[in-house]
Amino acid sequence: MQTSESLDKVAEELSKLPSIGRKTAHRIAMYLAKSPAEDVIRLSDALLQLKDKIKLCSICCNITESDPCNICESPKRNKFSICIVEEPGDVFAIEKTNEFKGLYHVLHGIISPLDGIGPEDIKVKELLMRLSGHIDEIILALNPSVEGEYTITYLSKLIKPLNIKISRIARGIPVGTDLEFADEITIAKAIEGRIIL
Amino acid sequence: MQTSESLDKVAEELSKLPSIGRKTAHRIAMYLAKSPAEDVIRLSDALLQLKDKIKLCSICCNITESDPCNICESPKRNKFSICIVEEPGDVFAIEKTNEFKGLYHVLHGIISPLDGIGPEDIKVKELLMRLSGHIDEIILALNPSVEGEYTITYLSKLIKPLNIKISRIARGIPVGTDLEFADEITIAKAIEGRIIL
Repeated sequence: MQTSESLDKVAEELSKLPSIGRKTAHRIAMYLAKSPAEDVIRLSDALLQLKDKIKLCSICCNITESDPCNICESPKRNKFSICIVEEPGDVFAIEKTNEFKGLYHVLHGIISPLDGIGPEDIKVKELLMRLSGHIDEIILALNPSVEGEYTITYLSKLIKPLNIKISRIARGIPVGTDLEFADEITIAKAIEGRIIL
Repeated sequence: MQTSESLDKVAEELSKLPSIGRKTAHRIAMYLAKSPAEDVIRLSDALLQLKDKIKLCSICCNITESDPCNICESPKRNKFSICIVEEPGDVFAIEKTNEFKGLYHVLHGIISPLDGIGPEDIKVKELLMRLSGHIDEIILALNPSVEGEYTITYLSKLIKPLNIKISRIARGIPVGTDLEFADEITIAKAIEGRIIL
């Protein structure tokens, strides 16, 4: 097939991104090739600016433009409560609920012995440094995967001796879903975690 | 929600692309924020190069880096047969089949009176200029939509007086699909277009 080198290059780079397959990457490259130059330049600039400005917060390890990040700096947040998450995206997901008023700690990964990822490969050291100060409560908001469970076990063993209240977010039936569509393990966890009324 | 301006900017630009919704755009922006700087710079550069190098072939109007494009220039192609398509992506789709050995003409759109798109808004003038030379056959490979049908009717009326053989690609049951899943119109067109064995 005779095609264009610069088009293939864009498609190749795009297909490395999450949720973009080879066909979609090619379609987007085609679209960009036909778009006005200023649109493409705006996208290209936004990408460069992103790498220029984004860094990790020296306290919570979330991605931020200012250090410490807005959340860690805010006087309205409860500095004695820390919610531990895997990725920056999880912070945004929890913030959208407006339910949690404490601070976060982003691990940037999860312990996965099978993939050779140990506690030293994620931000556990940074977490322990924070725990040396006064902390009332830790909430583990990790995904309920095998690795998530492993990491929860690891962290709770690490934190319990420090006399800090530690909890994990509930597993159960997603709101708006029919019980009949949920898998057995989720239903079992939902029953196990039932709340007395 | 407290978030980052440069991250939002990337997400906004990405969400303008086809097949990328708001949520996916945000996930990709997050991913890029965490990626090594050189990966993001490579993507940004590829985008700029694309706009720098890509132009339209002065013969077939396909996107190309060299003018005339590789297909129009190739001595192996039959210069007396032209396949008319809507978009550059259609050329790539047909080239992949290795079935067609002629040249192409990319309309960059389709006639759609409801959207106010007339023959003067797509590359019809460029097509007519090509037809003033010696051409044996025109194949209309337009999508079988309402606008596609309209454009096919328009073009065939325009081309027929020129004494050029004109055809449209077949409508029928997609290969690998069960007849029972095809819609009535497709089945009707498949029967209408049956091939005598």
